[in-house]
Amino acid sequence: MDFKKIGDAEISRRDLMLGAGKVAIGAAGIAALSSGGFGLIRNAEAKEGSTEKWPWPYVKLDPDKTAELAYNEWYRVFCGAAVISSVFTQLREKIGEPYKSFPIDSFVFLEGGMAGWGTVCGSNAGANVVSNVIIGPRIAGPDCEHGHSVGSDMMDWYSNTALPIFTPKEPKQKTAIIQTTANSPLCHVSVGKWMKKSGFALGSAERKDRCARVAASVAHKLVVDLNAWKDGKFEPKSSWTPGKSVGITGQQNCNECHGSNIPTPPMAKK
Amino acid sequence: MDFKKIGDAEISRRDLMLGAGKVAIGAAGIAALSSGGFGLIRNAEAKEGSTEKWPWPYVKLDPDKTAELAYNEWYRVFCGAAVISSVFTQLREKIGEPYKSFPIDSFVFLEGGMAGWGTVCGSNAGANVVSNVIIGPRIAGPDCEHGHSVGSDMMDWYSNTALPIFTPKEPKQKTAIIQTTANSPLCHVSVGKWMKKSGFALGSAERKDRCARVAASVAHKLVVDLNAWKDGKFEPKSSWTPGKSVGITGQQNCNECHGSNIPTPPMAKK
Repeated sequence: MDFKKIGDAEISRRDLMLGAGKVAIGAAGIAALSSGGFGLIRNAEAKEGSTEKWPWPYVKLDPDKTAELAYNEWYRVFCGAAVISSVFTQLREKIGEPYKSFPIDSFVFLEGGMAGWGTVCGSNAGANVVSNVIIGPRIAGPDCEHGHSVGSDMMDWYSNTALPIFTPKEPKQKTAIIQTTANSPLCHVSVGKWMKKSGFALGSAERKDRCARVAASVAHKLVVDLNAWKDGKFEPKSSWTPGKSVGITGQQNCNECHGSNIPTPPMAKK
Repeated sequence: MDFKKIGDAEISRRDLMLGAGKVAIGAAGIAALSSGGFGLIRNAEAKEGSTEKWPWPYVKLDPDKTAELAYNEWYRVFCGAAVISSVFTQLREKIGEPYKSFPIDSFVFLEGGMAGWGTVCGSNAGANVVSNVIIGPRIAGPDCEHGHSVGSDMMDWYSNTALPIFTPKEPKQKTAIIQTTANSPLCHVSVGKWMKKSGFALGSAERKDRCARVAASVAHKLVVDLNAWKDGKFEPKSSWTPGKSVGITGQQNCNECHGSNIPTPPMAKK
């Protein structure tokens, strides 16, 4: 936790902000409050973030319940924000801060591969936001490295799995939703292959329900992995490090865009 | 602002958290604090986010200073988080919350097109995070629609501009950095074209400095657009809505992956 001196009283800033009922604030603290002494905290922390301490508190969640939440949230905030919301709204209830201060709905822009541009599927992006916000960024030290690897594993799994795999209890589309394997973490490729096989248009109710179920499938795996991490049992499965192996950031499906004529990037001197 | 009743004292929760020196907290408020009465606030807001009210407070920033910050931050947190940090660390100093509660460094994962997978360039993703966190998501009403359009405009501009355009005052690489036009918002395509033209490897100091300058170029434009929005003068320039125009989410460079054999997606019935 984040302790700051206020006069002689050493209190947890988070406890103070949340008022979780366990704050024993002394006379010095009250004086600091009534005289505007909190300004000391503000100045001291003006540059550094108050939530940039990892990991964030986490309690294990139910994967099925999380997937149901993601499915239903898709129809409000679409893929990326639905994945974030499915995890963070539960943690807002069970824990409170810092999840309450995270602006989940801002991430609606992850829809359609970022504002409709068909780049990374928002479900993958949302999962990466969640894992790196909770566990932390890899630069924050070895305890945080799984923020990166849970996210990267998701893109590997997403690319190589016939999706969607989650069926909601009360589907908005009663007809069967066919599965396709994207071989890519990109929205355009994932949605395009599904549209080609299913014959349904982008604007169809079936395509929307397919994407809602994909978001739910991703949210399910995300919580399975976060729970394993919480138990100290998460083992990364992906070993995809294209910068090292092929000399450029990339996916695993070079041929799909390049055909047989895959360029050789300039390589560093050995 | 976000006002809550604590006993008879009606105070701004943000003022209380920031302690900006202007809080006149009455006896009832002190009683609520010492008896754990803040728990009322916690329970009342358990489900809803405390920062999901848009726009977030914004003061106009200097584009050149922001670009310098982004350039230097690239060498600490890489492209996406550098763009976010360049804007939010200034707003932490000038405004305080809610920027202090936003976990900037979690967004290191945007590096290399998201954990090295070469999808959307992190600078584009970071700019979208910033615009949608400050202005708001498009679902939050017409006042927030420019969160989406500032972000989408960035991807359009990024795709069609010879980058980098920003030269730092104290470049880490003294040699000239050539410019390339990506015709795509993707990391793999943007970096790949630059590597091909320049002959420098992914791991070279020159490539790193090129990406740091691209992040700085994006941060510069981002602040120009945010300042225009603050003045009520932002006009979206991009009209790219591929879902409507070509029936699938996507970029503008179909031929680059598909060659001349561009598939026709199934279209919705008219």
